[in-house]
Amino acid sequence: MAHDIRIVTETELRRAITLDLETVKVIEQAFAALSDGGVVMPPVMSMDLAAVHGEVDVKTAYIPGFDGFAIKVSPGFFDNPKLGLPSLNGLMILFSAKTGLVEAVFLDNGYLTDLRTAAAGAVAAQHLAPKVVQTAGIIGTGVQARLQARAARLVRPYDRLLIWGRDADRARTCAADLADLECDIHVVDTPENLVKASQLVITTTPAKTPVIEAKWLHPELHITAMGSDQAGKNEIDPQALVRADLYVADRAAQVEQLGELRSAIEAGIWTKGAPAELGDVIQGRARGRKNDAEITICDLTGTGVQDTAIATHVMARLAGRDVGTVITA
Amino acid sequence: MAHDIRIVTETELRRAITLDLETVKVIEQAFAALSDGGVVMPPVMSMDLAAVHGEVDVKTAYIPGFDGFAIKVSPGFFDNPKLGLPSLNGLMILFSAKTGLVEAVFLDNGYLTDLRTAAAGAVAAQHLAPKVVQTAGIIGTGVQARLQARAARLVRPYDRLLIWGRDADRARTCAADLADLECDIHVVDTPENLVKASQLVITTTPAKTPVIEAKWLHPELHITAMGSDQAGKNEIDPQALVRADLYVADRAAQVEQLGELRSAIEAGIWTKGAPAELGDVIQGRARGRKNDAEITICDLTGTGVQDTAIATHVMARLAGRDVGTVITA
Repeated sequence: MAHDIRIVTETELRRAITLDLETVKVIEQAFAALSDGGVVMPPVMSMDLAAVHGEVDVKTAYIPGFDGFAIKVSPGFFDNPKLGLPSLNGLMILFSAKTGLVEAVFLDNGYLTDLRTAAAGAVAAQHLAPKVVQTAGIIGTGVQARLQARAARLVRPYDRLLIWGRDADRARTCAADLADLECDIHVVDTPENLVKASQLVITTTPAKTPVIEAKWLHPELHITAMGSDQAGKNEIDPQALVRADLYVADRAAQVEQLGELRSAIEAGIWTKGAPAELGDVIQGRARGRKNDAEITICDLTGTGVQDTAIATHVMARLAGRDVGTVITA
Repeated sequence: MAHDIRIVTETELRRAITLDLETVKVIEQAFAALSDGGVVMPPVMSMDLAAVHGEVDVKTAYIPGFDGFAIKVSPGFFDNPKLGLPSLNGLMILFSAKTGLVEAVFLDNGYLTDLRTAAAGAVAAQHLAPKVVQTAGIIGTGVQARLQARAARLVRPYDRLLIWGRDADRARTCAADLADLECDIHVVDTPENLVKASQLVITTTPAKTPVIEAKWLHPELHITAMGSDQAGKNEIDPQALVRADLYVADRAAQVEQLGELRSAIEAGIWTKGAPAELGDVIQGRARGRKNDAEITICDLTGTGVQDTAIATHVMARLAGRDVGTVITA
């Protein structure tokens, strides 16, 4: 029973979809669905390939009402740079949620993951940052540093952007790459100065020891920590989670294992129980920011619903368009 | 960093690879590798989609020394026949074991799974069945009934084939489809008559209550049970496992959860501890059949190493050949 399968490459995907408010909306809907219940999202399948200095993660989620569900495979092979290859790559497969048939293979090398991760940052800022953000701060200088700066500006059109990274040269390159945002961009000398001057801070690092100290927290601050996605990573001083007026998770069961909350639990200082989830805040089932003065933190570890949402969204965008290669199988 | 990815359809795969002794050898090597250690094989990722009467399984395994590793996605959507579609489909993705880059996507709709499952039956017969098998018996009338009959004959060239299924018409169709084997083929009226007359029996059913009773077991009998692959399935009377001289698993940790052993453990009659694995028998680390008179049983639940082995094998077969569609991504 042959049917058509669309194969789309990274180049084709980059032309077809970018980071915009529509993408943010799609990811917001995914989190809202997660709160509604009925989502089937198995734990991440992880394969640690120590012998080849690699790892492979598989994520998926079924969301009621969505036409398809995605299965995403994300390999990370950390000796690749020696071969002139990127460490991270991978693909997403979109299946019909009605028949289980393969509908599309997105050979995105991680591009759609980058997008859906950035969009989640925008969703967090939209629902948790102070209404007016004059200064935003980005910690880190990689792909997500750039994308998170752009994503935040879609929902909080800041005038000033501060960037800090361990490597000042890379921070300057990052700032230069963001010049088209046409706002005031500065590379700052310490994360402390960045946090103290910002109303919205996004951490995008693979740090294993905190880059933000609790004592830097101040009224009218929202922090989104999106770097931690594995046990062992930790971007924010565990005391900061306790001190914040509100700490929100993308997925409570996941931040306890892979996110910032893990360190706070291990340090024995977290006594508030399971944190609220972003979807619950979106749906009004959990409280969000009460006023401008509060300090809020959102912890993003990455969820399968985001993958299913972005893949379904891409498929809808491509409908009726001659993009990719169609194979009958 | 664009690279070539080969997309191969079911039709192209059926032309390129069939069930033969080379395929059996490849699957034997996979089981041997599982015994050697160093294999990384995470538990099956399972997603139960009750709302749409579907399920999705994801399997993978890394085998030291193999050029690639496969990730296999197997959706089963059981309302599909109402739409004129098969219930089972899916695909395999082959990644480089050195760089994690996608090398091939096999849109096989389950064909490679059928092959590697049949080949495992041949491996089990080769290592556990009596040296001379005059009569083989197949219980069940589906795709695996046909393939297991062919696989068994590659390693035990029987003269007579008995077939039993709950539906006699389907059993007759199955027999007719196997006419090219050019041996004496009979549809029998009861599974009891089939077991009693055979030296090699293969069960290929989705049975939830046993189709083989312990009292039918006789000297010079090997049974391979390949139907059970989920908790709830059970093809063989648990007493038969206890009564057999030797019970071998494809993967001990898996048969306890998904195979025949689960029922024996639940019935409280299994006291022999973890069973030997097929790979250990192949490698001589566990004993196989001691003499023709013994009764042996092999329980196959399906393993990720088989998927990685068949996918790697297919890729090697296709090397230098103009098969499939090459996409640069």
